[in-house]
Amino acid sequence: MSEQEIPGYTYGAEAVAKSPVSLEDFDLLKKTVLFTEEDEKYLRLAGEVLADQVDEVLDLWYGFVGSHPHLVHYFTNLQGEPDSDYLAAVRKRFGQWILDTCNRPYDQDWLNYQHEIGLRHYRTKKNQTDGVQSVPIINYRYLIAFIYPITATIKPFLEKKGHSADEVEKMHQAWFKSLVLQVTLWTNPYLRPEDY
Amino acid sequence: MSEQEIPGYTYGAEAVAKSPVSLEDFDLLKKTVLFTEEDEKYLRLAGEVLADQVDEVLDLWYGFVGSHPHLVHYFTNLQGEPDSDYLAAVRKRFGQWILDTCNRPYDQDWLNYQHEIGLRHYRTKKNQTDGVQSVPIINYRYLIAFIYPITATIKPFLEKKGHSADEVEKMHQAWFKSLVLQVTLWTNPYLRPEDY
Ligand code: HEM
Ligand code: HEM
Repeated sequence: MSEQEIPGYTYGAEAVAKSPVSLEDFDLLKKTVLFTEEDEKYLRLAGEVLADQVDEVLDLWYGFVGSHPHLVHYFTNLQGEPDSDYLAAVRKRFGQWILDTCNRPYDQDWLNYQHEIGLRHYRTKKNQTDGVQSVPIINYRYLIAFIYPITATIKPFLEKKGHSADEVEKMHQAWFKSLVLQVTLWTNPYLRPEDY
Repeated sequence: MSEQEIPGYTYGAEAVAKSPVSLEDFDLLKKTVLFTEEDEKYLRLAGEVLADQVDEVLDLWYGFVGSHPHLVHYFTNLQGEPDSDYLAAVRKRFGQWILDTCNRPYDQDWLNYQHEIGLRHYRTKKNQTDGVQSVPIINYRYLIAFIYPITATIKPFLEKKGHSADEVEKMHQAWFKSLVLQVTLWTNPYLRPEDY
């Protein structure tokens, strides 16, 4: 599926608000997670490795969410049942996110869309993109906790295309750093600006 | 240095308030980061491995903080200079924390002290324990970002006592999970209760 065909995927669009995190502050965050040009290089390589495995990665993550009532909760309708249309709509954007994480330059457009993703997990915009009636917010604590499974479970997929252990490790560390950066950016709407 | 001799270290003391996170909610967090009894076992092993390396670990972490003005900032006095007494006082508790992370049961006392550590990074209690005059809060974004360096830099120390690659990896994953859990707990005071 090409990007344009993904409903609700508004990367780079005018409608996406400017991130409250400046490029200068983002630069300090990159320094804090030791993110360098080498990581960008290995993210590109990870993008090649993951390109034809996106569906399998999503099967695994959706299986994880689906098998835990306290997680699938955030995809339920007002009757408390999982909303399969909602799950399916988010899945397409989630797949595109894997590729964006690997292939996009981390510039102002990227920063803005990270903020948009944050708003879509928070009260501000959850449910709006897909026009669904579901719980109003993804509780903060699980956003941070997900850093672990989303980092750990990607590694076997990075190993599948015959790269050396050293290359796999470098792709994996770059992924881990990027995820920490993104969750840091996404949680901005949850915080008082002066505490962030 | 024995625990009793660490100024400001109040683990298990009456004065430590009860964590707002219940053991039931903590259990769901553990499930979310795939934390099991096997991780407890490997944390104990990590505790043996790290016991006589605590000072070297702290040298590395303090070197990292010290070499970045945007990080050492949080240890500065009102004149903007690093407060060496403050740095030294925190260092002792930080060393004990490494051992606690590995050796303590993650029970109610542990949960309570995690909340206390959170309060000490937040406006509520920063600077009070050591009676210093410093900046009033550690900004949220660096707490999340630190998950990367505090995870990545521990690995070489876990490798130093001749354990197999598989054992080192298991110790490292257990450390990573624990750190994600702890940072999730520590940031509680930064969040509105209904968003957490
Ligand atoms: C590291 C953590 C996480 C990652 C990488 C992640 C990734 C994503 C992505 C890429 C999207 C689509 C963004 C877009 O609209 O373009 C999304 C949306 C969503 N995620 Fe997450 N997510 C994380 C944590 C969570 C957690 C813990 C839950 C709870 C189970 C969750 C539930 C949802 C829901 C319900 C949506 C749809 C929000 C809406 O209504 O627009 N996510 N996530
Ligand atoms: C994963 C992230 C972090 C870990 C594991 C960590 C660990 C610790 C520990 C164990 C303590 C002592 C707790 C006690 O009093 O018993 C502490 C206090 C402190 N940390 Fe952190 N920390 C983290 C993030 C940060 C960051 C990003 C900064 C900013 C440079 C920072 C600055 C401080 C300061 C200034 C104190 C003293 C607070 C007070 O006044 O009581 N920490 N930290």
